[in-house]
Amino acid sequence: MLASTRALGEGLLLKRRDCLARAITLIESSLPAHSDQASHLLEHITKNRTLPARTDGVRLGIAGPPGAGKSTFIEQLGMRYVNKAHKVAVIPVDPSSHISGGSILGDKTRMGELSRSMDAYIRAAPTRGVLGGIAEHTSDVILLCEAAGFDTVIVESVGLGQSEVDIDAAVDMLILIVPPGGGDSLQASKKGIMEAADLILVNKADGDLLGPANHTKADYSGAMQFIRRKHSPWQAPVLMMSAATGFNLDKVEETIADFQMKLNAEGLIAAKRSQQRRFWAMGQLRRGLFAKCEALPGLQEHIAEIMRQLDRGQHAPRTAALAMLDKVDMAFRP
Amino acid sequence: MLASTRALGEGLLLKRRDCLARAITLIESSLPAHSDQASHLLEHITKNRTLPARTDGVRLGIAGPPGAGKSTFIEQLGMRYVNKAHKVAVIPVDPSSHISGGSILGDKTRMGELSRSMDAYIRAAPTRGVLGGIAEHTSDVILLCEAAGFDTVIVESVGLGQSEVDIDAAVDMLILIVPPGGGDSLQASKKGIMEAADLILVNKADGDLLGPANHTKADYSGAMQFIRRKHSPWQAPVLMMSAATGFNLDKVEETIADFQMKLNAEGLIAAKRSQQRRFWAMGQLRRGLFAKCEALPGLQEHIAEIMRQLDRGQHAPRTAALAMLDKVDMAFRP
Repeated sequence: MLASTRALGEGLLLKRRDCLARAITLIESSLPAHSDQASHLLEHITKNRTLPARTDGVRLGIAGPPGAGKSTFIEQLGMRYVNKAHKVAVIPVDPSSHISGGSILGDKTRMGELSRSMDAYIRAAPTRGVLGGIAEHTSDVILLCEAAGFDTVIVESVGLGQSEVDIDAAVDMLILIVPPGGGDSLQASKKGIMEAADLILVNKADGDLLGPANHTKADYSGAMQFIRRKHSPWQAPVLMMSAATGFNLDKVEETIADFQMKLNAEGLIAAKRSQQRRFWAMGQLRRGLFAKCEALPGLQEHIAEIMRQLDRGQHAPRTAALAMLDKVDMAFRP
Repeated sequence: MLASTRALGEGLLLKRRDCLARAITLIESSLPAHSDQASHLLEHITKNRTLPARTDGVRLGIAGPPGAGKSTFIEQLGMRYVNKAHKVAVIPVDPSSHISGGSILGDKTRMGELSRSMDAYIRAAPTRGVLGGIAEHTSDVILLCEAAGFDTVIVESVGLGQSEVDIDAAVDMLILIVPPGGGDSLQASKKGIMEAADLILVNKADGDLLGPANHTKADYSGAMQFIRRKHSPWQAPVLMMSAATGFNLDKVEETIADFQMKLNAEGLIAAKRSQQRRFWAMGQLRRGLFAKCEALPGLQEHIAEIMRQLDRGQHAPRTAALAMLDKVDMAFRP
């Protein structure tokens, strides 16, 4: 391990914010030299962390359609945790920005108060379009944040769809935020995300929207009756709240604590995290294998030839892949 | 090739609907025996298709948030093509339903008239959560539909986020449908999807929503000025329309035809399809490689041991993957 990598790891464990920022940059780098350093850093942290057990911290996932008020909710919830002496890290995952990166408005603008708190850390996680919406390194970034003393990690997903279900692979509890809306919103809601959610919050339950929010809550509550439980000791509740006025946020906080308590009582959070570690490790293994195979001598030429045949219409993509696999077999001679 | 597979391929090329349905089921099957038959079927079709060139057909992708009116739009647009003697296949891709599959309302219910037309074929494409929102076999399903004589293929994506950008890997033209909405909807819209869209349609421009639709159109038009062109000969337009009343659908149809014409004039659709074929082939190659490595003698035991070490906290997921890769190296002895 490089001396600088060791120093970075030690600074991180001493909870230095500058070290956390540099560590995340290192983890997300795609340069091969950085990749080795990143692995050493993770090893250092894994072996030296002073956290008694990772299940002491809380990892929340926040999903929901654009305009549902996720940022406002995260800011409010985050400040509540900060005011109770927790340290809060927010990792927004932006699956739709992989062409040129970045949302139109920056994340720090969206969460002004939280971003100015010394007990909060907000970091955008650029996705590489690898794992269906959740950034390749999200799991590592969570580990770094926790090593730096952030006991409450909030991962925010943008958009309905694959990304909402994927985010569940990185967190203990998935919270779905929906805006008040007519029948349309429920018709369009798919079973998948409702099955994945541990808590559904109908936001903006204030002023003129209180009535519609009530209807939306009833619609979701009705639909949830047909949804299989994700964890046996937990029936995912549907609550109204208003991130803007603070209405029902006490109840939301209680519900999150209740979820953690009920699932921890049966060891289900530790079990979920164990599964998640395996999932992330297997994902990395897949990518590593592919990089290794791509580097096999002569394989690139074979692939180029088969790709030309594909272009001439001699293969379908699937049969082209089979032809390439045959070449890998020959290159490996197992 | 099995005689039954050959018969299926011949029935498909004779444009038999029952053969198309069975062929898609075969392609989507995960049984190893079916996988071989599926490859033979694709090979048969690739070598025997009578379509002069695939670029004669049109492949459209429809994306947008829930409640934007995608189904109504597809039904209306599809019927217009059917009435002009085209044959239309609709492949809804539902990225959020990979836990138990299926949306709350069936796709055929959503598109009643189109689903009853003898010149249309509507098929749900179950995702396996493999390629970030777009089903593993979508590309193959498109090939089958085209081989069965459907010259217009519409792939529908559910949700904002990764899936919208991914769907672009399967189609010629990506159409984003948005509902009328205030500043919220644009704030939340990400650059990524706007960069990927070839046409943005503000739906529901009728009655009370005509005014808000006009505002939304102006907002998107303004934002699009800051978006880099995806294809040099095409500036993605923003149009208002109403799938419910039919308002401006003529213009939408013209715009789609114009896109095809302008891009074909520079060979850009053929070039995009060539890239897509490579993309799908490489995806299949990745999955095939992984399956092959998993089957290496002794590797499963090594993996199990490293996973136990991971659970005991001796590795981070990423360093566990590196340890597994070392074992693969040893198993292969390249």
